[in-house]
Amino acid sequence: MEGYFDLDPIVARLSTIRRNWRSVQAHHGEYGEDSFPSRGDLGKIMGALCGALFPLRLGPAFVRLHNEDAFVAQTLQTALSRLYGQIRLELIYAASDISHSAIDSQAAQIIADFAQALPDLRLLLDTDVEAAFLGDPAARSVDEVLICYPSMLAIIHHRLAHHLHGLGAPLVARIISELAHGKTGIDIHPGARIGEGFFIDHGTGVVIGETAIVGKRVRLYQGVTLGARSLRLGTDGVTGRGERRHPVIEDDVVIYAGATILGRITIGQGSEIGGNVWLTSSVPPGSRITQAHVENRVTAIRMNGRQAPAASVTAAVPGPKDQPPG
Amino acid sequence: MEGYFDLDPIVARLSTIRRNWRSVQAHHGEYGEDSFPSRGDLGKIMGALCGALFPLRLGPAFVRLHNEDAFVAQTLQTALSRLYGQIRLELIYAASDISHSAIDSQAAQIIADFAQALPDLRLLLDTDVEAAFLGDPAARSVDEVLICYPSMLAIIHHRLAHHLHGLGAPLVARIISELAHGKTGIDIHPGARIGEGFFIDHGTGVVIGETAIVGKRVRLYQGVTLGARSLRLGTDGVTGRGERRHPVIEDDVVIYAGATILGRITIGQGSEIGGNVWLTSSVPPGSRITQAHVENRVTAIRMNGRQAPAASVTAAVPGPKDQPPG
Amino acid sequence: MEGYFDLDPIVARLSTIRRNWRSVQAHHGEYGEDSFPSRGDLGKIMGALCGALFPLRLGPAFVRLHNEDAFVAQTLQTALSRLYGQIRLELIYAASDISHSAIDSQAAQIIADFAQALPDLRLLLDTDVEAAFLGDPAARSVDEVLICYPSMLAIIHHRLAHHLHGLGAPLVARIISELAHGKTGIDIHPGARIGEGFFIDHGTGVVIGETAIVGKRVRLYQGVTLGARSLRLGTDGVTGRGERRHPVIEDDVVIYAGATILGRITIGQGSEIGGNVWLTSSVPPGSRITQAHVENRVTAIRMNGRQAPAASVTAAVPGPKDQPPG
Repeated sequence: MEGYFDLDPIVARLSTIRRNWRSVQAHHGEYGEDSFPSRGDLGKIMGALCGALFPLRLGPAFVRLHNEDAFVAQTLQTALSRLYGQIRLELIYAASDISHSAIDSQAAQIIADFAQALPDLRLLLDTDVEAAFLGDPAARSVDEVLICYPSMLAIIHHRLAHHLHGLGAPLVARIISELAHGKTGIDIHPGARIGEGFFIDHGTGVVIGETAIVGKRVRLYQGVTLGARSLRLGTDGVTGRGERRHPVIEDDVVIYAGATILGRITIGQGSEIGGNVWLTSSVPPGSRITQAHVENRVTAIRMNGRQAPAASVTAAVPGPKDQPPG
Repeated sequence: MEGYFDLDPIVARLSTIRRNWRSVQAHHGEYGEDSFPSRGDLGKIMGALCGALFPLRLGPAFVRLHNEDAFVAQTLQTALSRLYGQIRLELIYAASDISHSAIDSQAAQIIADFAQALPDLRLLLDTDVEAAFLGDPAARSVDEVLICYPSMLAIIHHRLAHHLHGLGAPLVARIISELAHGKTGIDIHPGARIGEGFFIDHGTGVVIGETAIVGKRVRLYQGVTLGARSLRLGTDGVTGRGERRHPVIEDDVVIYAGATILGRITIGQGSEIGGNVWLTSSVPPGSRITQAHVENRVTAIRMNGRQAPAASVTAAVPGPKDQPPG
Repeated sequence: MEGYFDLDPIVARLSTIRRNWRSVQAHHGEYGEDSFPSRGDLGKIMGALCGALFPLRLGPAFVRLHNEDAFVAQTLQTALSRLYGQIRLELIYAASDISHSAIDSQAAQIIADFAQALPDLRLLLDTDVEAAFLGDPAARSVDEVLICYPSMLAIIHHRLAHHLHGLGAPLVARIISELAHGKTGIDIHPGARIGEGFFIDHGTGVVIGETAIVGKRVRLYQGVTLGARSLRLGTDGVTGRGERRHPVIEDDVVIYAGATILGRITIGQGSEIGGNVWLTSSVPPGSRITQAHVENRVTAIRMNGRQAPAASVTAAVPGPKDQPPG
């Protein structure tokens, strides 16, 4: 390619553009010596933590009963040490005026708290494995669930990320969440609180927002959104940062594929929300909400003496009695 | 981090939790010396099999016409041998009371049957490449389809997984399906039966259930679900395991983006199902089903002397004549 | 597995099948010595280009202020040279009757034009980072946006792919787009024209077609389709190849989750399109389009003296006033 272009002025112009961007963005731009937590490194750390939590299933092939504890100990030692490094980078980035020694001890405390929580997190994850096994008639064993189901990959990442989020490492937590999002199509913000026995079937397209609260034994299907109402930009920029703006889903709720639940509303205990339902106000416990139905609509129009758009409906369309889950 | 926490009690508690889990789950828990098929290993095996089936396009760069057959032979030898190992792990896991020699010969027979089916599977996949090329006006060549289209990655994985599923390796098959799901957002259970000339455009969010039957030359768009009706837990746990609970799609059907087809219903030959349609009863051959339309609904309300919610509809909304595909 | 089957006839049959396929597909089949651009190689090239554009955030850990320009220069040198190789493969494939020296100079010219555009592409991408930061109340910094948000990964890939598409490397461009699609669930055809300040929140399931035109400061949510109307096969095969068949979205439009916009229609400046809306005709500037509502429909039926399907609607369903974004 020699002779077709000169790389130097391109490199120089890129350099100028970066300098301008950093001066405009002040601290929170890509501005200087500060590094940032690394997506690639956190991917490796999460792989190791998954293996430490489920050694015979998500660990490497050489792990067997006789060397399991040794594997767990050594893997945690390494993974937690590397996670410490990533959290340290986040703390330095977030608060550049704090001394490094204060940051070191803060990062160490976060890692200590996180490590001590790992057994309880494994117990929680076991409830998720069981929920998936019970919830999906296609599942043959709890091990199949653990190895195959995107829901498990998403919830392992979420439960670890959520704990780190609460301990003061929201950026590291967010990167972990996005690792799972990239692999599964399930987008759970690390701030979301999710109770035991959680299961998402299929999963692609699920979105759970930052301030959502999900009770125990909740089951979602693909394409469900637990989102925020629309936000308008105020004169001072974005409003809504930090507000409670996502739904509360109480225990034992089932939400079918494609349903959209928006705003700080409450879905009462034991409710079932049908596929593709669009819901922006609270419903009491035990509700069954389904989308109203094509046949009804066509009937209503006919009763007004107006012809139904029959040309485009040349076959029977199901009525409410055929519609799950009601 | 030294001094902030002691790893030993954490490792010990994790060990106790695993022991309890395994005793509760009996055989089908993560319980002992048994290994389980590995997602990582199966990913490499599938990469090799894709290369063996389409050597000049999905194989490594050094493959050329003159060394193609040698590459295919050597790649199959290695990949099939590794696949044998994975299937052996599945058989040991599934039936721990059978002798290892019986398992060895069963695994070898599965591999033999699978290997002999590979040429027919390649022929089937060629019909899928052609269907994608014919079905998408943005496609420039069959090679672009093979290299770029997530539909191809999904259907290669599915056709191989489905064959293994039928030969008695459902776990290995399921892991292969989930590898494709993770990469494409297309979730096809290995049990689903799919005819020649299958194409999914865009693909993200498609779900095809375990007992679905899809005819020849069927085309789907993104977000289509061929799913089961909702299931209630009986007193004896999940009902529905093994039942025929997913749709039958006959030949030459097109199903547009976001349509949801649920239950053991039949979509007759040559039908077109419009975008976002929700369908839970059978339709005869040649049907064109479209979602009824916003404008109609608003009109019906006006005719009852009630004001339409005009504040939120400040612009024209399309009537049925504008709506594809009818 | 020895003795269970003979690999040789399988390899021979696969060889025959490939030969037949290639003879039928003539030039545009997987037919001979010609190689094809490689998805794996382009993945590595894109990783390097991302690092060159955002060295401290998407580059390797050793990059710091003092060696940043050197890193950018060296990375671009290598990545552009490898990209030249891929584009050369595309040009050879597309036009096998042109002499190799003509192809070499054409590929070199494409690389020169592409390299010179990189600073402007970085400036454009900076507007996307800012749009994401302003548009999502959960974002804490522009760096979090750049590292975490699938929208950024998708738009970086898109802007580079779109430029290569315009320079005459549509296959390389398409492979780059599909790399991003696989990682994010966001499917943007490289032909689509997208203005500055573009943001997709969450993103999974978004589809933007080949001839779509998107203005400045447009925001989309997950599951939005900017697609084509359905196409029927004519007697001469596919119609519609090359036609303008996707929407025009003017400046400052917001389109909420799951909305489907189909055909060569125009969404006027500043419009808001509500979640799950299905739209196939143009709307003027400033429009607010929302899906009509379940409650209205049920009310209309009641007013006709017919009982509402109350059994399946046991709880309040929201009216239009509750519905975003109107």
